[in-house]
Amino acid sequence: MLYPSAMADDRSAGRITLAQVAAEAGVSLSTVSKVLNGRPDVSAPTRVRVEELLDEHGYRRSAPTPPEAPLLEIVFHELDSIWSMQLIRGVQNIARRNGVSVVLTETGTRHSPGADWVEGVLRRRPLGVVLVFSTLPDELKKKLWSRAIPFVIVDPAGDPEPDVPSVGSANWAGGLAATRHLLDLGHRRIAVITGPEDMLCSLARLDGFRSALGMAGIAPDPALVRYGDFHVASGREHALDLLRGPDRPTAVFAGSDLQALGVLEAARVLGLQVPEDLSVVGYDDIPPAQWSSPALTTVNQPLERMAEEAAQMLLRLRGDRGAGRAEPRQDDRAEGAGPETRIELGTRLVVRDSTRAPKEPAGR
Amino acid sequence: MLYPSAMADDRSAGRITLAQVAAEAGVSLSTVSKVLNGRPDVSAPTRVRVEELLDEHGYRRSAPTPPEAPLLEIVFHELDSIWSMQLIRGVQNIARRNGVSVVLTETGTRHSPGADWVEGVLRRRPLGVVLVFSTLPDELKKKLWSRAIPFVIVDPAGDPEPDVPSVGSANWAGGLAATRHLLDLGHRRIAVITGPEDMLCSLARLDGFRSALGMAGIAPDPALVRYGDFHVASGREHALDLLRGPDRPTAVFAGSDLQALGVLEAARVLGLQVPEDLSVVGYDDIPPAQWSSPALTTVNQPLERMAEEAAQMLLRLRGDRGAGRAEPRQDDRAEGAGPETRIELGTRLVVRDSTRAPKEPAGR
Repeated sequence: MLYPSAMADDRSAGRITLAQVAAEAGVSLSTVSKVLNGRPDVSAPTRVRVEELLDEHGYRRSAPTPPEAPLLEIVFHELDSIWSMQLIRGVQNIARRNGVSVVLTETGTRHSPGADWVEGVLRRRPLGVVLVFSTLPDELKKKLWSRAIPFVIVDPAGDPEPDVPSVGSANWAGGLAATRHLLDLGHRRIAVITGPEDMLCSLARLDGFRSALGMAGIAPDPALVRYGDFHVASGREHALDLLRGPDRPTAVFAGSDLQALGVLEAARVLGLQVPEDLSVVGYDDIPPAQWSSPALTTVNQPLERMAEEAAQMLLRLRGDRGAGRAEPRQDDRAEGAGPETRIELGTRLVVRDSTRAPKEPAGR
Repeated sequence: MLYPSAMADDRSAGRITLAQVAAEAGVSLSTVSKVLNGRPDVSAPTRVRVEELLDEHGYRRSAPTPPEAPLLEIVFHELDSIWSMQLIRGVQNIARRNGVSVVLTETGTRHSPGADWVEGVLRRRPLGVVLVFSTLPDELKKKLWSRAIPFVIVDPAGDPEPDVPSVGSANWAGGLAATRHLLDLGHRRIAVITGPEDMLCSLARLDGFRSALGMAGIAPDPALVRYGDFHVASGREHALDLLRGPDRPTAVFAGSDLQALGVLEAARVLGLQVPEDLSVVGYDDIPPAQWSSPALTTVNQPLERMAEEAAQMLLRLRGDRGAGRAEPRQDDRAEGAGPETRIELGTRLVVRDSTRAPKEPAGR
């Protein structure tokens, strides 16, 4: 059910009234209301003072009445990412089914949305917010919590905040599946180009790779383990280096589809045929993976379904009294309304044309 | 200036009052107001009757006061398209600069938005709407005009409605530039795979191709002219057919980057090297054009800038008394407020690695 606001009780909000906050801050009730609703005409010090008091007293508004044209928001650091379109479509799918429109914002840094964005959200009063960020500043979380605007992180990077509901995918299992596929084909000398060392998804995929080798009784050669940045150029550069060496690998697990495209380009430059001379496995299964030549064998990360799941979590959270907090408060728990805190969707191997058995006998 | 609504005069709306419409329709004033604002609680026959009267009397609201959190809308038939992301980014760029949020909708068919969408727009009262459609039903145009919600078509297909402002790009010039590049390299036997026969952009690119050949004194071989559907598979199928023939072309102008990727795959399957054995030129310059192996020479269609231009036109139309009608009405014209009706942005050739001089001497 989408709009329980009129029925929602005010017990959690009732700990302190807005009039008490106004008195304590020495401002009018209408000023407190302006701060709550993200209106611009309040001085910065007053705004800070009121926010502090709201936080201190654990004020929590009952779910606000949504506007007549209800909205779901999705916020990105970077619309450039090839991931963005699939995430937008996921949110859009759920929004359409529920007669809701989608507001899109690109703001802030890789790690958190910009400050300007928050006041806009308070004014728009969306049913909820899907954030494509790993971490969120405390101030932002407090503002959304106190206004009872639910939020969920979609987190392909695999490193979510523990106290915010989030949707990710099974990176370790993906790395394992990619590597097992290459082992099953008979490859023994397999290189890996994973993502940045400071992203958990990179480490999880790499650990899946190592475990698959370990289970096959193969000690990974440290010279064949590389850290890229998930983009095409880093795949190309690492592959040029790996493939020019004297004892070149017969297969590369590229850690992302973009890096896999870079590996294909390196092979072309060096006159190697894929898959005849070299097998390549990508990761993500973005549309260009199907369009490449040859089409990429890859690990499907269900980005669209991840965003759908996040949007559905928001609507459920909304149904559960406009909560949005993963760690339920005492009185939420009493009602049994604690939302899920973390969902990881499965990844699966998609076999296309960039992998086959190596020419040389295994273990040359 | 963004919000002239308070100052906008009511002369064009003043031809008939809402009270007169209500009286003529035999309903209350508040019912007329509900219809104007897209509220759901009005019976369908009443809604139709009121819309008819508004249209008949040429009612035109002065620009409505935008909500406190102003919105721009972008509407797609198909978010799948690889174009979508660049168009969204263009609108987002302008929105961010103006402190506006972007609402995204996927609705309807290739030719027009779904009926359900219109009422939502009337409720949200956006500053304007960017439509990624070629044609619009009259009913929709009338509704938006009467509510003074400006709209602009972004039209990569090149076939806009004459009475709606639109942004396109120079398709004919793009086809000419792609073909001249191949001629300059020494190619004489050049195939073309354009888009569907019923899309003006396909025909314009093909005509540019033919004119370039004509200017070089070459009569196009009808066997080398193909119509695809702009997707990868049609590029692959046509290329397999073209390249298996006895007197195969030394170059293909592929009409879209996706079709060009299909041509690369056909070449791979047939054991032909690109660009050594075959030159390939794409069209669009979507990101995968840079990531392919080899990177594609292509014609840049400035999708992001097209969307930026459309969003800026909306804000200007808004400034010009919330018009949105390309053909200015009598009283608009008197004020000199006639908006532009059509902008075509330039296309340009981007030379990468998929083209070079043919092996055989020209004119073999």
